[in-house]
Amino acid sequence: MGEETMQVVRQIKEMQKISDRLREKGKRIGFVPTMGYLHDGHVSLVRKAKELCDSIVVSIFVNPTQFGPGEDFQRYPRDEEGDREKLERAGVDFLFMPEAGEMYPPRYQTSVEVAEVSKGLCGDFRPGHFRGVATVVAKLFNIVKPHAAVFGEKDYQQLLVIKRMVEDLNFDIEIIPGTLIREEEGIAMSSRNAYLSPEDRKRATVLYRSLVKAKELVDSGEKRTYNIVQAVEKMIGSVKGVSLQYVEIRDAETLERVERVSGPAVIAVAAMVGSVRLIDNIVIGG
Amino acid sequence: MGEETMQVVRQIKEMQKISDRLREKGKRIGFVPTMGYLHDGHVSLVRKAKELCDSIVVSIFVNPTQFGPGEDFQRYPRDEEGDREKLERAGVDFLFMPEAGEMYPPRYQTSVEVAEVSKGLCGDFRPGHFRGVATVVAKLFNIVKPHAAVFGEKDYQQLLVIKRMVEDLNFDIEIIPGTLIREEEGIAMSSRNAYLSPEDRKRATVLYRSLVKAKELVDSGEKRTYNIVQAVEKMIGSVKGVSLQYVEIRDAETLERVERVSGPAVIAVAAMVGSVRLIDNIVIGG
Repeated sequence: MGEETMQVVRQIKEMQKISDRLREKGKRIGFVPTMGYLHDGHVSLVRKAKELCDSIVVSIFVNPTQFGPGEDFQRYPRDEEGDREKLERAGVDFLFMPEAGEMYPPRYQTSVEVAEVSKGLCGDFRPGHFRGVATVVAKLFNIVKPHAAVFGEKDYQQLLVIKRMVEDLNFDIEIIPGTLIREEEGIAMSSRNAYLSPEDRKRATVLYRSLVKAKELVDSGEKRTYNIVQAVEKMIGSVKGVSLQYVEIRDAETLERVERVSGPAVIAVAAMVGSVRLIDNIVIGG
Repeated sequence: MGEETMQVVRQIKEMQKISDRLREKGKRIGFVPTMGYLHDGHVSLVRKAKELCDSIVVSIFVNPTQFGPGEDFQRYPRDEEGDREKLERAGVDFLFMPEAGEMYPPRYQTSVEVAEVSKGLCGDFRPGHFRGVATVVAKLFNIVKPHAAVFGEKDYQQLLVIKRMVEDLNFDIEIIPGTLIREEEGIAMSSRNAYLSPEDRKRATVLYRSLVKAKELVDSGEKRTYNIVQAVEKMIGSVKGVSLQYVEIRDAETLERVERVSGPAVIAVAAMVGSVRLIDNIVIGG
């Protein structure tokens, strides 16, 4: 929680040089990649990084390649000044904000694909999304050269895609999950919540309420995925203006489908609330 | 050309630790990835790395994912003892020889694809080959953590795929091209030359001879790709037992097709000589 000033870095080569110097000095670099419009969820990821590392780098980059056609890339919320204040207050050392033109110059043509874990769930509704995520994170890892990076459990499938990529491509980086943070009414914190009207905000609470209901069912002995999913679908289906995309229960580590909850599992849900796409999940013990 | 002993490293984590320690000591790490069965071409790459770096790492890994079905993965020539001797004599510091099972463990599922440069030429005849190459090289880069890596110009398209991947994924690694080395008769050095019968070896010389002929044509004023390619096709076609796969003239930097030789261009050729697939190329000035 320092009063030191945060350094803003915009050039890729400059960021790499800074990281080289930090490493030469024996500093442990902690990294939190974001798309900006920061909320308390992001701040909690920074806090986690600060517990484990000496120098904290946060990136803000609204990555065009992880948005599909018709998605909200153009209108994705931005607030550079507010973000800088929040990060400075949180004690971040370096804010990396590259230009899209430097990240994806002419003749750019490389992509990273994590095959299995990217399938199903959000992968089915956002084709190419996780390829865009894996690719930009690989780039950011090579630019920021962190020892550890924190990814929120809110984007549960993304966290597993990154973990898998790091293991498969032998990135020497520790991936640390950050707990999902909720607003007072239980809605999972998301930059996209800014889009919600007051009415939609009320409707959106059904996602978390349905996940709590599912957990109660499991705790009370119901282990059959089918029955739990049915209960969640029914509950969400009863709220007008909320259109369910999926609710699924999957193995919490491999993301493989499970027919019964017998070990750690994640219940993940995605829905359109008005014109806003929201996701949520909880991990249950088994 | 030291008498120090070379250290053989087989574990991924051990290699990463060694590289971390070298970097902490301020050593510049030079890397030469190979599939073994080494010849003077490889040794020249090592020599180049030694000119520019303090510590030299060579890897030997016959990467299964860059061989297609029906290709020569199973019978690819191996000679661990001979390779070790050659590398020790060349003054290599670390020989990294991972196990396929550690490189591609169960649930492995990630790939790196360089789209445009991987198309055409060998890309058309070996589907998936350059995806396998890009992926394993990304892995090796994250394991060996070199400052510079040397790739032979013999595999010209591979060199450009790697250069493009490094630029696109922001690997902070200098890619250094190594000159193609020829045997006495002009055949480009290749581990696969070991497969050639004495007769096939004679036949194989037509590849280089046809490239020299093409260069002479260009030097004497013929700039039209079509005419040059025709001359090469005719020359190779006249040798029994040699079956041409392609001869093409492309921009030496982008690998884009050119209709006229007006700047640096590469003339690349691939042919089956008996059952052995050989490639060769020369770069012409323009």
